[in-house]
Amino acid sequence: MAEEPVRGFGVDEYKVRHQRASELMRAAELDALWVTSEQHVRYFTGFDSQFWNSPTRPWFVIVPRDKPLIAVIPEIGAEGMAATWVEDIRTWPAPVPEDDGVSLLATALSEVACGHGRVGAELGPEMVLRMPQVDFERLRNKVSGREIVDGTRVLRDLRVVKSAAEISKIRHACQIASAAFEALPNGLVFGDTERSACKKLHMDMLNRGADAAPYVMGVSGPGGYANIIMGPTDRVMGAGDILIIDTGATFDGYFCDFDRNFAFGPPDDQSRRAYDVVYRATEAGIRAARSGASTSDLWQVMNDVLEAGGSLSNSVGRMGHGLGMQLTEFPSNKPGDHTLLVPGMVLTLEPGMEFAPGKMMVHEENLVITDAGCELLSRRALAEMPVVC
Amino acid sequence: MAEEPVRGFGVDEYKVRHQRASELMRAAELDALWVTSEQHVRYFTGFDSQFWNSPTRPWFVIVPRDKPLIAVIPEIGAEGMAATWVEDIRTWPAPVPEDDGVSLLATALSEVACGHGRVGAELGPEMVLRMPQVDFERLRNKVSGREIVDGTRVLRDLRVVKSAAEISKIRHACQIASAAFEALPNGLVFGDTERSACKKLHMDMLNRGADAAPYVMGVSGPGGYANIIMGPTDRVMGAGDILIIDTGATFDGYFCDFDRNFAFGPPDDQSRRAYDVVYRATEAGIRAARSGASTSDLWQVMNDVLEAGGSLSNSVGRMGHGLGMQLTEFPSNKPGDHTLLVPGMVLTLEPGMEFAPGKMMVHEENLVITDAGCELLSRRALAEMPVVC
Repeated sequence: MAEEPVRGFGVDEYKVRHQRASELMRAAELDALWVTSEQHVRYFTGFDSQFWNSPTRPWFVIVPRDKPLIAVIPEIGAEGMAATWVEDIRTWPAPVPEDDGVSLLATALSEVACGHGRVGAELGPEMVLRMPQVDFERLRNKVSGREIVDGTRVLRDLRVVKSAAEISKIRHACQIASAAFEALPNGLVFGDTERSACKKLHMDMLNRGADAAPYVMGVSGPGGYANIIMGPTDRVMGAGDILIIDTGATFDGYFCDFDRNFAFGPPDDQSRRAYDVVYRATEAGIRAARSGASTSDLWQVMNDVLEAGGSLSNSVGRMGHGLGMQLTEFPSNKPGDHTLLVPGMVLTLEPGMEFAPGKMMVHEENLVITDAGCELLSRRALAEMPVVC
Repeated sequence: MAEEPVRGFGVDEYKVRHQRASELMRAAELDALWVTSEQHVRYFTGFDSQFWNSPTRPWFVIVPRDKPLIAVIPEIGAEGMAATWVEDIRTWPAPVPEDDGVSLLATALSEVACGHGRVGAELGPEMVLRMPQVDFERLRNKVSGREIVDGTRVLRDLRVVKSAAEISKIRHACQIASAAFEALPNGLVFGDTERSACKKLHMDMLNRGADAAPYVMGVSGPGGYANIIMGPTDRVMGAGDILIIDTGATFDGYFCDFDRNFAFGPPDDQSRRAYDVVYRATEAGIRAARSGASTSDLWQVMNDVLEAGGSLSNSVGRMGHGLGMQLTEFPSNKPGDHTLLVPGMVLTLEPGMEFAPGKMMVHEENLVITDAGCELLSRRALAEMPVVC
């Protein structure tokens, strides 16, 4: 196991993020970004709390162009935010449904939106505005004369390229999950359920140093599985079953996201062939993953292998995506998404196919684009399906 | 340990939910509810997937008054939704940022909003619309002539009273966490960090049958802790430290949410007194928790004990809240929230105080309002602080 990376980031990392954000804001004619979500508040401030699990209170951070950040947050978070590099912290005794920070926020936004009069917010694809809609409408009325526009492009461009420190955390999460996946076949037995199999992996990842495993999906079936998002159930597994487990484990706020397949007893020819096809599709994706290629190129080279290998269909809608503070991030490996790969982008490759009616085979690996091509962050799946015996 | 409740719900439970929703819609002059969030999709359909961890794709369910539900969802979820009681399932090959289900959804909403022309959505307090804001605006334009209004009141009134089956799942989560909390002092040692202490509890809860523990917060300090939402850190604990761990563990989609305090070595007089005051505040809350009392009554009786006991302040903003499919739900135990308690409401009591500058003491228990008063779902904290030695 690689040594555990240092937790958190130095203030310099946050200053660089702020500076890069300011440059992107200048190009987009924005006076500030305003964010409401766990990942963006943490990205800009370092504020790290599990309290986001509670939907009751909204949290706001304003990132003005070239000026110090402003946090407008519930009183319960004042002590925590004061430990970050943010100095301008404004609080209210939330929850106060009648005015849950809206007036405070409107004042702060009006202070900073004094150039173009435009503030970028989390309004676009893959973004959710984490506050009540009625409060957002109140806010828009209160900041009249200032425009709240879609800041998705700026937020994406900023986050899609990861720093070395960010990559080291993703790599660590990937290594933990890789080791746990490699050990798993020895821990599984005929008679395990999907749920008990997932629990074994879950606990082993925690044991090996994962902070949490918010995603531990497992699904099985005779000779193949019918979907990749619905398990685990109490289905008992035995001879002839194929199990896929897909996991997102975290280390210090960063995810891995990849899966592994397991055969209970020797797999039949059809599923062995399907495994081989999807393995080779992943190989093609890895070879193509380099600076200057696009996400649609990745999709194409993987899809070519799958089609040649007899794919009936793929209901997933893409073959991999960005990865970082969230289990899935921009961009998508799919036709029509022509995002150019650049060093520092962390991606999953996730080729998959229905190889017989109701039977799917999906593989996944995580990598980072480098100057030389790419570096695999997960340890490569075995070329032949691991067998539980 | 109590026996594990049956997983899932029978179709009858969903039919009752739909029927109750229809009655509330009638009173609110709504033709349908339209929901986008994990908890509401699951509440109405039973669709249970960890895939909500991926923010990429929106999911929509329409609950028409007295008519069958309609799911408008990504293709990747079709197989899973087909296993629920929902029959009208419409899919698109998400992600398609250009039109991620918006046209399909608009058509479906227009079909059902043919009475009052009003659809209730997750627009109000403690609600988040889980879709891009720009798509919500497109949707509003597409359903012109139909109004999308705030359906928070209906959703709240529906969910705040839990069925016996729901309560059994919350009780089970509470019992798992109670057992793990009771065992914890024997597993802790001087030299444990906040992080290692939380990890021990986390793994023990999984071992005892929790599905997951999305919230395992731990924070410590000499003679008391300064906040209750920011840990765990790598702070090493030893003689004189007080540790609080607050946890939300889940069983079959339902949370517990309570905390326990631990002293490393014999606690000093001040923290012992604080523990006793907050313990007695909880007792007062338990006595007051009965049908006909209000959430502000609960706050008042607890606050009286805390003030008499020397509370300097409380930055939490309330003293407990609803609990169920989410770690925190409506209502809040606070002045001004006059929600009347009725049988079937599940609540936390969470009295806390700053008893010396920078030192807090917080307790928490979970209970359900019954015909006779209330039933404690968590096993009562010890009357004296457990000591690690």
